[in-house]
Amino acid sequence: MPTRRESNRPVRATLPDGLALSSTDVRNRIIPGDPPRHAGDEESLDVWGFRDSAFTLLPNGNVVFSGSRYPLCGAELPDLLPWTRNTLGVAIEPDDIHDSTYPPDVPAARANHLFVDQVRRLFPEDSLSTDARVRLRHGHGHTQEEMYAIKYDRLERVPDLVVYPTDDEHVVSLVEAAARFNVCLVPYGGGTNVTKALRCPTEEERMIVSVDLERMDKILWIDPTNLMACIQAGAVGRHIEEQLAEHGFTLGHEPDSIEFSTLGGWIATHASGMKKNRYGNIEDLVLDVHVVTAHGVLSRSAVAPRESVGIDPWRWVFGSEGNLGIITSAVVKIFPLPEIQRYDSLLFPAFDAGVSFLYDLAHQTTPPASVRLVDNLQFQLSLTLKPKAEGMRALKRKAEQHFVTKLCGFDPERMVACTLVYEGGHQEVSAQERAVRRITRRYGGMRAGAENGKRGYQLTFGIAYLRDFLMKYNILGESLETSVPWSLTLSLCENVKRRLAQEFTKRGLPGRPFVSCRVTQIYQTGVCVYFYVAFYHKGVEHPSQVFDELERCARDEILRSGGSLSHHHGVGKLRGVFLPRIMSSTALEWIADVKRAVDPENVFGIANQKVLN
Amino acid sequence: MPTRRESNRPVRATLPDGLALSSTDVRNRIIPGDPPRHAGDEESLDVWGFRDSAFTLLPNGNVVFSGSRYPLCGAELPDLLPWTRNTLGVAIEPDDIHDSTYPPDVPAARANHLFVDQVRRLFPEDSLSTDARVRLRHGHGHTQEEMYAIKYDRLERVPDLVVYPTDDEHVVSLVEAAARFNVCLVPYGGGTNVTKALRCPTEEERMIVSVDLERMDKILWIDPTNLMACIQAGAVGRHIEEQLAEHGFTLGHEPDSIEFSTLGGWIATHASGMKKNRYGNIEDLVLDVHVVTAHGVLSRSAVAPRESVGIDPWRWVFGSEGNLGIITSAVVKIFPLPEIQRYDSLLFPAFDAGVSFLYDLAHQTTPPASVRLVDNLQFQLSLTLKPKAEGMRALKRKAEQHFVTKLCGFDPERMVACTLVYEGGHQEVSAQERAVRRITRRYGGMRAGAENGKRGYQLTFGIAYLRDFLMKYNILGESLETSVPWSLTLSLCENVKRRLAQEFTKRGLPGRPFVSCRVTQIYQTGVCVYFYVAFYHKGVEHPSQVFDELERCARDEILRSGGSLSHHHGVGKLRGVFLPRIMSSTALEWIADVKRAVDPENVFGIANQKVLN
Repeated sequence: MPTRRESNRPVRATLPDGLALSSTDVRNRIIPGDPPRHAGDEESLDVWGFRDSAFTLLPNGNVVFSGSRYPLCGAELPDLLPWTRNTLGVAIEPDDIHDSTYPPDVPAARANHLFVDQVRRLFPEDSLSTDARVRLRHGHGHTQEEMYAIKYDRLERVPDLVVYPTDDEHVVSLVEAAARFNVCLVPYGGGTNVTKALRCPTEEERMIVSVDLERMDKILWIDPTNLMACIQAGAVGRHIEEQLAEHGFTLGHEPDSIEFSTLGGWIATHASGMKKNRYGNIEDLVLDVHVVTAHGVLSRSAVAPRESVGIDPWRWVFGSEGNLGIITSAVVKIFPLPEIQRYDSLLFPAFDAGVSFLYDLAHQTTPPASVRLVDNLQFQLSLTLKPKAEGMRALKRKAEQHFVTKLCGFDPERMVACTLVYEGGHQEVSAQERAVRRITRRYGGMRAGAENGKRGYQLTFGIAYLRDFLMKYNILGESLETSVPWSLTLSLCENVKRRLAQEFTKRGLPGRPFVSCRVTQIYQTGVCVYFYVAFYHKGVEHPSQVFDELERCARDEILRSGGSLSHHHGVGKLRGVFLPRIMSSTALEWIADVKRAVDPENVFGIANQKVLN
Repeated sequence: MPTRRESNRPVRATLPDGLALSSTDVRNRIIPGDPPRHAGDEESLDVWGFRDSAFTLLPNGNVVFSGSRYPLCGAELPDLLPWTRNTLGVAIEPDDIHDSTYPPDVPAARANHLFVDQVRRLFPEDSLSTDARVRLRHGHGHTQEEMYAIKYDRLERVPDLVVYPTDDEHVVSLVEAAARFNVCLVPYGGGTNVTKALRCPTEEERMIVSVDLERMDKILWIDPTNLMACIQAGAVGRHIEEQLAEHGFTLGHEPDSIEFSTLGGWIATHASGMKKNRYGNIEDLVLDVHVVTAHGVLSRSAVAPRESVGIDPWRWVFGSEGNLGIITSAVVKIFPLPEIQRYDSLLFPAFDAGVSFLYDLAHQTTPPASVRLVDNLQFQLSLTLKPKAEGMRALKRKAEQHFVTKLCGFDPERMVACTLVYEGGHQEVSAQERAVRRITRRYGGMRAGAENGKRGYQLTFGIAYLRDFLMKYNILGESLETSVPWSLTLSLCENVKRRLAQEFTKRGLPGRPFVSCRVTQIYQTGVCVYFYVAFYHKGVEHPSQVFDELERCARDEILRSGGSLSHHHGVGKLRGVFLPRIMSSTALEWIADVKRAVDPENVFGIANQKVLN
């Protein structure tokens, strides 16, 4: 989160003394104000991210990132385009732009008049929208297929109405009306979904209503004694962190999409955050969930640190992906802001050395809050995203490169980089740093410094904008991720790269594919691997469909190599077709049976259609 | 685990080097032999534990614990009986024994002939039993109500047949037969259940068959590279630990019942272990579960470190308490045995000081693997379980007591004790010890040494035998546990003690009740509190029913004080009546709907009857 780190020194929360232990937690609660609203934070509708931030190509062939939100901003990047040409093996002409025809025509809104009448009785006019642009935005997430469709084609079906409830009662009456009048509801958080869960199926005959939780975005209370907070499901990650930090706390959940994604979305997709080593994944962070279902509300009378209460419906809400109800709020664990936050980066001679380093880190010590290893291709890409150095800095950089490559013998075509984030108390962090140094040496690695570490970590947020930029130049790209046991990690990475190269060649596609991987999470039992895949598609018919096929081949190869269907993005409509390969038919029947049992009218009807209907 | 610690020095597993990362995990797997069978390990049928272990009262009024399994064994305990008399305020005559009439008559077995014929076709004769004693044992767990019934009354209904499957196919055909011929199945692990889940309802007209997993007790494979193991659900905790230790590993899950309870039981009850600070609770340890349901098998094609696969039936298995199917195996995380294991103990002037110590420990540092705080009453009880010291040791103990009470000003009627277990590497443990010392001083505590710590920790396993011993002398006792946020902990403990005293007086029961509590788990958000409740019931009509009422009052007070229904024992038939107080009606409907959807014939029909039917 760029802005937060700059403005907030880590503050150690003052914990109450022993006396507070006998006071009720209600008296101790802090009720924060409304979430922050910063002018200029408007989001784009047709590309990822903030409207004021984008990559652009200058006449001189350099790329620049607009705005001032990210470390990446402002400086010219002369190497990105040449490197891209070279890597993809194609001529990319700056004038040869694949012009977007956004916004596409939007299908006329269908109206279920009984439902609409009811909703107009229940809701003020300003919480309803049939505006075409708004409906369009609520009809897609950020898969390549959806982004391609909105820029160059159209969406055959989008929500017919968007509703913005402001409290639980609104949501309850909305769902009651939908069940009663046979309307389909789609919960909407940050709209950053990457499993086509928001894509409306053309077969859906009923009216589709998008339930946008953006006005239910508050932190309802903070309990500093028991380190819990109650937060509405529409609260956005960056605002949650900003508000908690004002009181000296953090949620510790930092997915790549934190600037835009919401608490409800994280629970619904069983999300993971970059610092899960310290704070845990979403299932470790959430203590209670409030859900409006087709037939009433899932709610609890009290929150426990941990409990055993028999068959527990709350466990099914995680990963429910909008199929079982609308999450309206959750009680989460919070943590005092760490005393220390430090970045670091490492270089290793090759990917397998880096993975061995990660293995020992996961098994022999407490790993830092975040550890991520990129392969050589991504390392090269990160170098192109470094601003052009001039004067003394250019000399220094040349000297560094000379040192790393010539003196230390690192091969620029094989070397890889690792980004680390340490958070915690002084001794804790020092111990982690010592362990990291020791294990780094064991695998022939070297430190590359805190500045590179910070840039590398922050690059995550900037890179998300790269895909939309490249689309303008006939390059389609996507990320796909998996989790896999350690012993299958290297072979999985090799297999996927090899398979994609084969499928690429088989289709006679232009140039070469870009297939790169990185390890973004480590566990004692294995890792999360992220693939970035891109190809140049000028002259290719239906490139988005071709990409879809390539992605399915990649997933097939992942499964055959012992990887999972997804570490954290989920299934949605994108990967439903693979479910029969990973779970028994009984499991699939259970899912369908349970869906039918708790949502017999299929009110929450579009997220996983191919599986559940 | 007494025997394991004595015989196995912690061995640090040799982890494979980087080369192993590219080999498949199948090639790397270790296939252990059969679980150990030690002569003399027979278990009692009518009381807790091993047949060779029990408290007995000697003619001289001293109590002695037979056998040699526990540190408690062998030495005479002169203070236990006097202290019990004094605490309960009653005269306990050594000759006034409440004679057990075990075994009670067992109802005649019902036979569903079609089912029995089918089962006789499928199973060898020695895997079936209609023996009355065997059926009796399979018809109860270890709640006070069940133990009282089998010793002094009878069970109106027990399983009609006990089956011992040896593999998954057996279990599948058994369940198919039950569904087809309308028979009720009850999964059985260690028989240590404390929620009446094993108690057969008299209203159950169908034949009831107990499915005892004891022959499916193997560790199927160990994967040392990826730190996983596949273990059958009938594997017993102490055997799992013994076998894993032979290879340098541990599962790290150590519930009080580990000597007898099984992996399947842990998953079904959403169990917690004493060292969860280091290893996690059952939901953190289990990666995959293989379940035979009424209509097929829940199984997965591969294991992932962590994944997001949409609606996930595996999450419902945790805490399913035998209502949704039979767990036959699971893939679990394993850990190298720790380099170091150290015990320690602390004394604090009073319970609230101890809880404040725990609060800071949970919030300011990484706590040791196990931390448990007993109140003054339990501290006194633990002193009575110390062998009579003689000679130099007696002098030393007197000197210690003088030091603690007179010189340090600890009040023997208020002081409390805390047991700690450290596990980990040298630096890790040293850092934890330093933090503990610092925080101990802050709350006026003092160290009481490793020997007391080890005794205190090991006492857990011995104390389980105390209940049955006391029953002989007309004393009924039980444990009940909860989880609660920090700020409500002290008031919850006070409220429960006060409420039980009131209810006791209201009923005119003899003497005084024994109500004691301890904090057995700490989290950032709160704790687990264990209550021990006992009373002398000579002259009381239907004492077991009275105890049931008292327990319900205690649970009512717990809920009113902000505690949960259970931290880890679960709900079963014991606490089903409270479910409507803690979760919304929609949640209860979801549970019933899901049960009906996935087990329409109610094959798995007895564990939570009051809720699900």
